[in-house]
Amino acid sequence: MKMQKGAFMRGRDNMIMKEIPVPEVGKSQVLVSIEYVGICGSDIHYFHSGNCGAYKVDLSQDFMLGHECAGTIVEVGEEVEHLKVGDRVALEPGITCGKCEACKSGHYNLCPDVAFLATPPVQGCNEEFIVFPEDMCFKLPDNVSTKEGALIEPLSVGFYAAEQGNVNAGDTIIILGAGCIGLVTLLACKARGAAQIVVADLVDARLGKALELGATAVINSGKEDIFEKVKELVGTRGFDVVFETAGSAVTIAQTPFFVRRGGTITLVGISSQEEISYNFAQIMDKEATIKSVFRYKNIFPKAISAVASGTIDVKSIVTHEFELKNIQEAYKEAVNNKTDLVKAVIKVN
Amino acid sequence: MKMQKGAFMRGRDNMIMKEIPVPEVGKSQVLVSIEYVGICGSDIHYFHSGNCGAYKVDLSQDFMLGHECAGTIVEVGEEVEHLKVGDRVALEPGITCGKCEACKSGHYNLCPDVAFLATPPVQGCNEEFIVFPEDMCFKLPDNVSTKEGALIEPLSVGFYAAEQGNVNAGDTIIILGAGCIGLVTLLACKARGAAQIVVADLVDARLGKALELGATAVINSGKEDIFEKVKELVGTRGFDVVFETAGSAVTIAQTPFFVRRGGTITLVGISSQEEISYNFAQIMDKEATIKSVFRYKNIFPKAISAVASGTIDVKSIVTHEFELKNIQEAYKEAVNNKTDLVKAVIKVN
Amino acid sequence: MKMQKGAFMRGRDNMIMKEIPVPEVGKSQVLVSIEYVGICGSDIHYFHSGNCGAYKVDLSQDFMLGHECAGTIVEVGEEVEHLKVGDRVALEPGITCGKCEACKSGHYNLCPDVAFLATPPVQGCNEEFIVFPEDMCFKLPDNVSTKEGALIEPLSVGFYAAEQGNVNAGDTIIILGAGCIGLVTLLACKARGAAQIVVADLVDARLGKALELGATAVINSGKEDIFEKVKELVGTRGFDVVFETAGSAVTIAQTPFFVRRGGTITLVGISSQEEISYNFAQIMDKEATIKSVFRYKNIFPKAISAVASGTIDVKSIVTHEFELKNIQEAYKEAVNNKTDLVKAVIKVN
Amino acid sequence: MKMQKGAFMRGRDNMIMKEIPVPEVGKSQVLVSIEYVGICGSDIHYFHSGNCGAYKVDLSQDFMLGHECAGTIVEVGEEVEHLKVGDRVALEPGITCGKCEACKSGHYNLCPDVAFLATPPVQGCNEEFIVFPEDMCFKLPDNVSTKEGALIEPLSVGFYAAEQGNVNAGDTIIILGAGCIGLVTLLACKARGAAQIVVADLVDARLGKALELGATAVINSGKEDIFEKVKELVGTRGFDVVFETAGSAVTIAQTPFFVRRGGTITLVGISSQEEISYNFAQIMDKEATIKSVFRYKNIFPKAISAVASGTIDVKSIVTHEFELKNIQEAYKEAVNNKTDLVKAVIKVN
Repeated sequence: MKMQKGAFMRGRDNMIMKEIPVPEVGKSQVLVSIEYVGICGSDIHYFHSGNCGAYKVDLSQDFMLGHECAGTIVEVGEEVEHLKVGDRVALEPGITCGKCEACKSGHYNLCPDVAFLATPPVQGCNEEFIVFPEDMCFKLPDNVSTKEGALIEPLSVGFYAAEQGNVNAGDTIIILGAGCIGLVTLLACKARGAAQIVVADLVDARLGKALELGATAVINSGKEDIFEKVKELVGTRGFDVVFETAGSAVTIAQTPFFVRRGGTITLVGISSQEEISYNFAQIMDKEATIKSVFRYKNIFPKAISAVASGTIDVKSIVTHEFELKNIQEAYKEAVNNKTDLVKAVIKVN
Repeated sequence: MKMQKGAFMRGRDNMIMKEIPVPEVGKSQVLVSIEYVGICGSDIHYFHSGNCGAYKVDLSQDFMLGHECAGTIVEVGEEVEHLKVGDRVALEPGITCGKCEACKSGHYNLCPDVAFLATPPVQGCNEEFIVFPEDMCFKLPDNVSTKEGALIEPLSVGFYAAEQGNVNAGDTIIILGAGCIGLVTLLACKARGAAQIVVADLVDARLGKALELGATAVINSGKEDIFEKVKELVGTRGFDVVFETAGSAVTIAQTPFFVRRGGTITLVGISSQEEISYNFAQIMDKEATIKSVFRYKNIFPKAISAVASGTIDVKSIVTHEFELKNIQEAYKEAVNNKTDLVKAVIKVN
Repeated sequence: MKMQKGAFMRGRDNMIMKEIPVPEVGKSQVLVSIEYVGICGSDIHYFHSGNCGAYKVDLSQDFMLGHECAGTIVEVGEEVEHLKVGDRVALEPGITCGKCEACKSGHYNLCPDVAFLATPPVQGCNEEFIVFPEDMCFKLPDNVSTKEGALIEPLSVGFYAAEQGNVNAGDTIIILGAGCIGLVTLLACKARGAAQIVVADLVDARLGKALELGATAVINSGKEDIFEKVKELVGTRGFDVVFETAGSAVTIAQTPFFVRRGGTITLVGISSQEEISYNFAQIMDKEATIKSVFRYKNIFPKAISAVASGTIDVKSIVTHEFELKNIQEAYKEAVNNKTDLVKAVIKVN
Repeated sequence: MKMQKGAFMRGRDNMIMKEIPVPEVGKSQVLVSIEYVGICGSDIHYFHSGNCGAYKVDLSQDFMLGHECAGTIVEVGEEVEHLKVGDRVALEPGITCGKCEACKSGHYNLCPDVAFLATPPVQGCNEEFIVFPEDMCFKLPDNVSTKEGALIEPLSVGFYAAEQGNVNAGDTIIILGAGCIGLVTLLACKARGAAQIVVADLVDARLGKALELGATAVINSGKEDIFEKVKELVGTRGFDVVFETAGSAVTIAQTPFFVRRGGTITLVGISSQEEISYNFAQIMDKEATIKSVFRYKNIFPKAISAVASGTIDVKSIVTHEFELKNIQEAYKEAVNNKTDLVKAVIKVN
């Protein structure tokens, strides 16, 4: 039996390496030699606190994190049709049932039976090899690297957020939160032709990154009065689309005041607080729409095309890179670096 | 100068009659002899408390209420093209600028410069004659009475709510609140082919009316556990569309729990409470959409057609009818009768 | 091995009965004892001419027609979760791959690998028993008969056509063609609240049926000038939605003249003629949209709900009923009766 | 009375200059000193053949062409609210009624009573000064020149075409025709993040311009087999959106073969031929949607923002510039130069 290295969290804030078997390839599956895995905000939550939203890691057992990955196919099952050994692929990490109302209607992200990498109890992909269904592996064109491939997953969240917000060319946008999800939302809005993109956050380094990636203005809401600043930037009209990516009760509560009459609020960030006091009078008066984002659906091919065509430079969001053997350090840094770390990736092979 | 009778509120809970001039007809205007005026929830709020939402009546002056009316054209301006003396018409009460971003894009209900009958400081139509722009008067077919014509305005709110909720044939719906707006929403959902329509309220008489108008089940949430009852009726799937028409913090807060994954919540009722504690975790987890309703737009012709074709029997919502001379009694009854009054109309001429 | 009776076409216009095995039930499958099978226009085409559109029956072999059926489950596979023996179900006849771009995005009707009952070389269901995937069998409520269940398939075409046409309450509609598909489109438009529904055809008996099912006006375009009649009925405005269900070059060519400015044409009927001369100048001038319909998607549950709630009385489209043993007579009648046959069904068990 | 110079066509292919009065400014109007006017394809049609589509110039009278212009406000009416003397503005040339069904629902481009500059009998703007309604004059930001301002009108056609086609980031697009409208459609698709944009035309110079503006591939369909080339570029999948901008029967007839299953065809070019033989079998089989474009609506503010933000470099489409006094030469060149002229503009003041 072929063996490989896999990284597991063993209790909170602790990562260990184990030798584990490389699984057998099923009929419609491929075996991928993983080259890059990203560290997502959810990985960090699980690693540091043992849970993320309603999901909890069973801390009595080792658990493998990681769900943003890309690599090269090294073996294919006998019924694989569209992929071959040597193809470089990005993995869409949620395997769905294909049979429920949500799946059939194209909203497979809402499938109640989804198995999503690194969402307990499903193990992740912080390892050297993974067996995956062919149809969830998306071939990368020659000019897209596997490092970029591993970033297609977080980019898809931003892409989908911009789609849910129905951002149009010429629109005026505000993005609350400049973490990884805020920044990929920015990249997607820019790709869709948004004319003015304001980004707000509490951390200057992140705002600097936002400016670098195309924000037309930034607001440090810890240092400036965000309401005053917004008024200065867009007057009393407000924004066509407001994205909330910070998941904080404070920023969620700001959204009704920033959206224009008839505009759209798109909730992307997941709050640790279930109930939030919200000004529905503003929503009603403006006839605003509130959309929300649960992961993404039908985005990978389009996101890969956008990266391949140069429309989106996704690799520019990466600020830190580690090797698999240093994964403990990588996760510690991701937990602790609140200033200049935006996105960390792990080089596997 | 021709004179007419007009009813005015003079301070709270007090209605007086005055002789006032019949205005001159402008070039693109018509003079309508009003036959029926409805009493809306907003009229009742202004009459009893002096305000409705953010709008306040200046109690130092007489103020004319009423914005739901229909009648017969008795004179037309020289540039009137499509209407003639003798035509029976329903009046759409919001006159908009036609030039702003909202108007041009078809969202004229969001025009900041709208002059809406009986929204202070604009006077209403509790009177015998009104001069109105031709393009806001919609001709009634022979088989639609002016009493039905006066009900087109409230029906339009329900019609628009169902449109904003994108109710489809075969859908499963819940309507929170069985006042006039809840019931017209029910009529509109039924007209759009909703298969299951559950209506919840605290007042049995209203729920009886809901059943009469086509609700497939009703819940008295004062007497029954609405969460249990919902589970019994639709299992754990939830509703395709949830309408909130009561405007209460309690029912608004219920909406995230009733909507299905991927479903739509449509807020119609206006709450007196600006901030409401709301479970956004449910919204995010279900990727639900929240739509809202500010009055209506582009609905009158379709609503009139639906009544004319028999698709909607709007007159069945009327429970009380008064004469103009008894308007004080009519408004008092509308304020006080919390049991069997659903909709009151005033016969004018 | 359990045996059953199955009807096969053996050459054109000829139906024979054979004893064939009842297939084994797979893990996620159910065995359905079929009670009713409808005869579709495509069945009639295959039976009489050997082909339908681009699809051809291999006439050197026996071929089983029939794809509209319902029955009772008599056995379930070991992994079946939601259905049980005794459940009455309607079968959605297209089994799709679940993995392609079309399937994942909810447009599974466009799956290139679909296996659709009675579309060559896939055999149909003119037989006593069929094994089918659980997720393509839709449970019928107690108040929906299996005869109605067999009609859910054609109804779904009409339902989907009305959805593609985005018919709204109060709309003014014309349906060209009053065959089975024209009539189910009529039922669906009525269910969605269309106010005026004009139906045109060449056969008076069909127009009579259309009136019975809710058409507000009918036009016999063989006897009347349809352009004159349309003008009389709706003036120069035209129709919000124009449905073409006859599949004739003549009626397809009429559509640009009947649609209103900004309206929608929905093509449902399949023409035997590939190229049709079409007035695109009208389309451009009116900025009309042309939608088309390929089978249906995500309709069965909603269509069943609509029948169960009484919104749609689908059984009223049935004009002829036969027993399985008389299937040759049934198909001959379906081919030859151009007057009063609208929809024939076969009672199986 | 203040006088100005105006250019008129006097019979076909002949342009003369006249001294005409500068009109008085009405209450809600502004007087604009025109700086640039573009020459549109429709201007060229009127100039050379006397008609464009169904519209005909009355050749017994002088007629002023030109409808793409921008300039500086030199006087404002007494009720003008949002603009002031010195503001630089682009003019949206269609003045609509604001009262019909089309206007109220936001589809004002379909207003039957529109007065559109240089569409007979409405005179155009090939002159020094024009009086125009305030709400149809859109202020240009400091970094947008009046030359760019005059290009907002043609850009709006492309912008609207891309909107009607619902182009999404990552999409694969083909544009048939690389004249001015093809190129502005290209600019708009690129702004919306289209990943692959193929442009086809018969003229190499235009295709060179397309490559310069961001096309990812071009096809000279006079020299290459476009069907082969398309297959080579995108395989058998086809394009998400197909734009027809050439208005030729040949290219219109190609559209059903290039669109992907479930994709959208957007007709932009106006054909001189009313009836075109079209393969509807392909449309039905693919369930494709056909959208069309009549001018544009609600685009100017977004198009100006897109130019101001640098998302779109509209001035790069201009290949020729003339002075007003040389307008005869300008129009002759526009008629005759079939090679390197893409867009000509006239400098007025």
